[in-house]
Amino acid sequence: MVNKAVGKLNIADVNIVLLGKGNVGNAWLSLFEEQKARYADTITVNLVAVANSTKYLLNLAGLSVSEFNDFSDNAITGNLSALTEVVTNAKLDNIVVIDVTASQQITHSYPEFASLGWHIISANKIPGTVSSERYKRLISLLKSNACYWGINATVGAALPIQASLVELIQAGDRILSISGVFSGSLSYLLVKYDGKTSFTDLIKQAREAGFTEPDPRDDLSGADVQKKLLILARLAGYIINLGDIEVQPLLPEKLLKGSLADFWDSKDQIDSYMAEQFSAAEQENKKLVYQAKVSFVDKVALTSVGLTSLSSSNAVTQLSPTDNVFTLKTDFYNENPLIIRGPGAGATVTATAVNIDLNKFVTQLAIANEINNHKNN
Amino acid sequence: MVNKAVGKLNIADVNIVLLGKGNVGNAWLSLFEEQKARYADTITVNLVAVANSTKYLLNLAGLSVSEFNDFSDNAITGNLSALTEVVTNAKLDNIVVIDVTASQQITHSYPEFASLGWHIISANKIPGTVSSERYKRLISLLKSNACYWGINATVGAALPIQASLVELIQAGDRILSISGVFSGSLSYLLVKYDGKTSFTDLIKQAREAGFTEPDPRDDLSGADVQKKLLILARLAGYIINLGDIEVQPLLPEKLLKGSLADFWDSKDQIDSYMAEQFSAAEQENKKLVYQAKVSFVDKVALTSVGLTSLSSSNAVTQLSPTDNVFTLKTDFYNENPLIIRGPGAGATVTATAVNIDLNKFVTQLAIANEINNHKNN
Repeated sequence: MVNKAVGKLNIADVNIVLLGKGNVGNAWLSLFEEQKARYADTITVNLVAVANSTKYLLNLAGLSVSEFNDFSDNAITGNLSALTEVVTNAKLDNIVVIDVTASQQITHSYPEFASLGWHIISANKIPGTVSSERYKRLISLLKSNACYWGINATVGAALPIQASLVELIQAGDRILSISGVFSGSLSYLLVKYDGKTSFTDLIKQAREAGFTEPDPRDDLSGADVQKKLLILARLAGYIINLGDIEVQPLLPEKLLKGSLADFWDSKDQIDSYMAEQFSAAEQENKKLVYQAKVSFVDKVALTSVGLTSLSSSNAVTQLSPTDNVFTLKTDFYNENPLIIRGPGAGATVTATAVNIDLNKFVTQLAIANEINNHKNN
Repeated sequence: MVNKAVGKLNIADVNIVLLGKGNVGNAWLSLFEEQKARYADTITVNLVAVANSTKYLLNLAGLSVSEFNDFSDNAITGNLSALTEVVTNAKLDNIVVIDVTASQQITHSYPEFASLGWHIISANKIPGTVSSERYKRLISLLKSNACYWGINATVGAALPIQASLVELIQAGDRILSISGVFSGSLSYLLVKYDGKTSFTDLIKQAREAGFTEPDPRDDLSGADVQKKLLILARLAGYIINLGDIEVQPLLPEKLLKGSLADFWDSKDQIDSYMAEQFSAAEQENKKLVYQAKVSFVDKVALTSVGLTSLSSSNAVTQLSPTDNVFTLKTDFYNENPLIIRGPGAGATVTATAVNIDLNKFVTQLAIANEINNHKNN
């Protein structure tokens, strides 16, 4: 939609530091060479460092595929502050940190990244969910240092929920509510569950397929959904805190306590609890969903996260397993809401969400260069 | 998601020429003052001209609300070429033409706009559906003159279908198919139709509510859906022609011929045709939808537009009246597609789609300025 006669940039290169080398990190690396080639006409994008929690691999001229594919052989021992120091000393232009970890510790480094003028792209949900004081300080620091912060990958992977929210607000719309199913794993469980088979067996099956965390209670607790709801509420302009969002876990609290072995031992209780919930919903011709919802009334954000039952004609109940769905009610989408549905988790779509943010950043630089050239001619 | 310390621009103002003063034009004008205020910190956005097919209103310093609200009193007689000449002579910076007409004639002026270095935002579907030769020439002209062309408002109003398509492709995804319901008026008719009441009465009702064109056969012919499918196929990289998309109208051709009076006189034939279609679908537990679809197989785009019946569990049949729905199958969204649903027509959401494009353009300029300032410091 943008047509630009963009020549090779004189604004210097983009230099990427990738933090995290798990599923998403590896998926992103597998897409990187093609992505780099896509930029090649306008800008040189180098991957200068890849790091996990204890080691990093560095090449200021840009890591080759064979270098980062042999990460474990080539990486040297060193933590994030060692890496930050080396990269800082190299005085590179346009540094972009891509954080695909779930690290609390890296979150603490965000203010430092901003102070150094580094741009950030996060799949990590923690930096967007810190206390409102820390959040506001970070935003202000990023702003005063002209840093880009892309958080597209934090909610719904590459689904266009965050862009839609922001674009509508910037075009004069007002968000009235955001609701839906924000967890691919809980979506899988509840779409698959038929009220007859064992819910615990279904959890085991989802865990084996890689749809839940190693400890499935991390999903069942609703804490992940709570974070996503907070991120969307903040994008809508309401700087509330995690503690403002009350969460009812998918299963009663007492069944989520103790060791993982205790949890599996509660099989009968879990199965009968879920069978009851299912049957109560079925009697009203409804379906079980683990729903997150925030309504904005004047300056107040009213939130809820928990198991509920909704009519089977509701868009929130019409899902394929692992689908997320987001329903936006706004001034302009009032009678019929705007609905976005599809897989909201998975290594490739999360890496794609990161690349969509990276593209926006690179495009900005390329267009700035083009406008400059026109101005100077 | 972008945090920029953007000061007042030194790159000069943005100057808008609005072509079209119907429903969408008026909705856009009613949003403009607020939108202008939103830009005020970074850039001055002036509306310098408003034109309909025979008259225009001009103020090089920026039209005030009272000026454009009294368009009919204040406008002077003059066609597009007269207006183009005046604006050209004024040597303004960053001219953006917003075309919210459905004019074939204005389409002919697009190459001139591009040659003049004017940026374009279109709600008009014709410029995106001209022959592939003309289309390629226009794209090339826009490119060599570094012109922005926003076409967000041409399909699905402000629904994020076009941005999703483009962003996924730019992030390395490959589009396998695009399908759905692209017409709010046909969606209204088929969602409301119960197989019992008169379909013709329903058309009259939709026409009175402003959901169809004055001659409803313009909707029933499928020509509007055909254009939208072409625009999306071209965004996916397939520069095919309108003639490559075969269209089966909602009603048999013979019922769409002759005068409008003839059409209403065919009431009994129309009603019994639709009742038959409905009943045949119902027997298979399916619902009627007017579906557009393009599948991409190697370098070939396989298209279809017509009435069909689909399972009631299909996302394409789960609509509220006037909803559009777009289903994207891609390499990355293969097992579960990406689905976007909501009102795809209407003056306010179409004006919003225009503003989303305008915001992208203004943001580009503002960021270019910021990068410049940093570079020069």
